[in-house]
Amino acid sequence: MSKQCVFCDIVAGDSPSVTVAEDDTSLAFMDINPASDGHLLVIPKRHSTDLLDIPAEDLTAVTLSAQRIAEVAVRELGADGVNLLNCCGADAWQTVFHFHLHVIPWYVDKTRDRLTLPWAPTRGRMDTIAELGARLSAAAN
Amino acid sequence: MSKQCVFCDIVAGDSPSVTVAEDDTSLAFMDINPASDGHLLVIPKRHSTDLLDIPAEDLTAVTLSAQRIAEVAVRELGADGVNLLNCCGADAWQTVFHFHLHVIPWYVDKTRDRLTLPWAPTRGRMDTIAELGARLSAAAN
Repeated sequence: MSKQCVFCDIVAGDSPSVTVAEDDTSLAFMDINPASDGHLLVIPKRHSTDLLDIPAEDLTAVTLSAQRIAEVAVRELGADGVNLLNCCGADAWQTVFHFHLHVIPWYVDKTRDRLTLPWAPTRGRMDTIAELGARLSAAAN
Repeated sequence: MSKQCVFCDIVAGDSPSVTVAEDDTSLAFMDINPASDGHLLVIPKRHSTDLLDIPAEDLTAVTLSAQRIAEVAVRELGADGVNLLNCCGADAWQTVFHFHLHVIPWYVDKTRDRLTLPWAPTRGRMDTIAELGARLSAAAN
């Protein structure tokens, strides 16, 4: 656990989050600045800063969790496509320095032109995020 | 191997590519439509369409290879940051239907605003791509 890391606080239960799935190694929760409906993050429970220092075991667990959730997003939310995105380093638009993999579902003609890097995070509607998270969580577990 | 798959052709040696690294399971080669200097792709040698059908073993090998190459891009090319990106489905801007993970190095104040989705692929200079590929390959192997 790293001091002053908001994602470590989420893992520890000290900060709120809409959890979608978890196992011993990884945690998936809704992004509160979503690029699309169902946008979520998968992180290792153990702190790593970024892609350059995450242990292979944790990276593997996070990636396989993201794959499972992408499948759930397609099946449960009707997503037409999904992007996985990792930002490693501030110059690649990483803003929280605890490794995280974005899972971003897309929908035909709805939100497809909204992912532009540099990313300008915009706070989403928490009721929508919570509802989508509950659906994903129910379908994933 | 899938018929009429350009990436299967690359794996088989039937189409040219600038190879950066390979192991029994995965192959990394330079993207000929680079978003930045050193942009490359990591694929499974065995054909999978996308994130939804790639076996866990292949996804793990591809991801760990991408991690190793991201580290090489930082060390050898002096990248300031790296993005990993997977596009799953035409509506998430997948254009070649053989699973691939983009490794996209970024450099401060040089190319940082060039990744915008939807992606408009633009052919790069092959001499530059070959030179960068040779440097990455030498440093990776």
